[in-house]
Amino acid sequence: MSSPPSPARPGDLDARLAQNAEAIEALLETLLSAEPAAGELTRPARLVAAMRHGALGGGKRLRPFLTVETAGLFSVPAAQARRAGAAVELLHCYSLVHDDLPAMDDDDLRRGRPTVHKAFDEATAILAGDALLTLAFAVLAEQATHESGAVRAALVGALARASGCGGMVGGQMLDLAAEGRFEARREALPEAEIRRLQAMKTGALLAAAVEIGARLGGADAAALVALGRYGRALGATFQIADDILDVESDAGQMGKATAKDEGKGKATLVGALGLAGAKRERDRLSAEAVAALSGFGPAADVLRAAARFAAQRKS
Amino acid sequence: MSSPPSPARPGDLDARLAQNAEAIEALLETLLSAEPAAGELTRPARLVAAMRHGALGGGKRLRPFLTVETAGLFSVPAAQARRAGAAVELLHCYSLVHDDLPAMDDDDLRRGRPTVHKAFDEATAILAGDALLTLAFAVLAEQATHESGAVRAALVGALARASGCGGMVGGQMLDLAAEGRFEARREALPEAEIRRLQAMKTGALLAAAVEIGARLGGADAAALVALGRYGRALGATFQIADDILDVESDAGQMGKATAKDEGKGKATLVGALGLAGAKRERDRLSAEAVAALSGFGPAADVLRAAARFAAQRKS
Repeated sequence: MSSPPSPARPGDLDARLAQNAEAIEALLETLLSAEPAAGELTRPARLVAAMRHGALGGGKRLRPFLTVETAGLFSVPAAQARRAGAAVELLHCYSLVHDDLPAMDDDDLRRGRPTVHKAFDEATAILAGDALLTLAFAVLAEQATHESGAVRAALVGALARASGCGGMVGGQMLDLAAEGRFEARREALPEAEIRRLQAMKTGALLAAAVEIGARLGGADAAALVALGRYGRALGATFQIADDILDVESDAGQMGKATAKDEGKGKATLVGALGLAGAKRERDRLSAEAVAALSGFGPAADVLRAAARFAAQRKS
Repeated sequence: MSSPPSPARPGDLDARLAQNAEAIEALLETLLSAEPAAGELTRPARLVAAMRHGALGGGKRLRPFLTVETAGLFSVPAAQARRAGAAVELLHCYSLVHDDLPAMDDDDLRRGRPTVHKAFDEATAILAGDALLTLAFAVLAEQATHESGAVRAALVGALARASGCGGMVGGQMLDLAAEGRFEARREALPEAEIRRLQAMKTGALLAAAVEIGARLGGADAAALVALGRYGRALGATFQIADDILDVESDAGQMGKATAKDEGKGKATLVGALGLAGAKRERDRLSAEAVAALSGFGPAADVLRAAARFAAQRKS
């Protein structure tokens, strides 16, 4: 990757997000090449096409952005942190491919394009998701990701714990249960259970993106604790802000205040706290994320901006 | 784990297989505990139950056996090699859960029990497979698996490359294509393509089980090459022996020589080489696996026995 002509200033979130997204896209393009990697026999064309459909051409690439910016706190160059960030993004993309499947959320469209099982077929989408998930770990394990094997193993551990049965996949399971998929739906999930569900389903991977950046930079125990607090608060901010946006866009578009999520039986903190209470909680969480960075000085301005962006974004 | 009262002699394959299966079962039981591991919030009960259904209570545990026995060539105690072996088994079990799904092979039974999507439901089976796959990498990344981070990262890399788009998942994709799933089936897949498909679909993970054992033991480059040759030949032996058994059991049970696999459109070497030719090739591959171990002396007797077992087994 050639450097962009005029690098964005630390506080210029939009420009830095856009620069990062472009660089991550180029890296994913390489990782999802049709050429077999060392030790592979061949990569079937249809499988690669489905993986590329599920991973390329979209999204803010927020997770790799968090990895790269956090690693930057420890003077790790962006070009060096991007491989680990791309691995987190591959994992995120697999989760979208599987979540869209007919047996899961049964979605036909994502970002305005057919979902993988619509563009290809269900078997191909299952396999493409499996292969994206597996590739995430292959990328983290490679020497090019970090010169220390101990660090690479720690990255694998962080990503696997955040995304497995006690993290993202577990959260997805709790979400299906909250929808009443397996037994009659309870009237309202207690607030603490909603928070835990969301911390697992979306928060854990965002927090892992931050942790992986910190570990790339050799963060000490105190920094890991502070950045862990930042990552969890940031993830919770994004989730509650999404739920608020969902209610407000429905209210605007439909002329009523009934949430789309509520109609689908989704457990959200807007339901538990009310709209005004949810907005207060969103702002509290965003402030908590910013506060967690107090020890990092101006270098963390862009991460602070990300926490404010999470609370304030309009779409 | 307490040691068994009378350890089996090196050449006593059946007893060693049984001892290993028992120890691996106990370890999987621990790894699939309902208790969250460090860094996890909770493990949803339904998800853990589905993962346990898919991974416990069955099988010869051949892959961990290969890991443990190969590590034993380098004097790694079995108790120490079993965690890595269990990770390979978790990965194998996820592949069975996903292969059984309605959109894939659509199987209702496995080892005489309902498949995971039959015992639970399709969404739970997809998530249970994802979680087993992810747990495999979490286990490999943990310090308890090996004291060296570089070795742990190498294990992750070996497992991910063997099981991803250029390995097992890619082979499954080629197999679906050979069945005519995506376009009109070709009359007969060329022999070289059948070999490659099988090397990816089943051979790569068996070879990775051996490689992981070798890496646990700090094998040098020459030993890795020899054991790689062993692992690939062993995997090919198992596959062709399976295909032969399939034809012969159908012939015995149905009074005719039509293969079940042929009826389902599966590409096998029995079709390409004929039954007699396939048996010669099976014996040649088994002998090649044994020959690859020529540098290892009597310590490798059990691995030699495994190669002969692969060719000679009756079910």
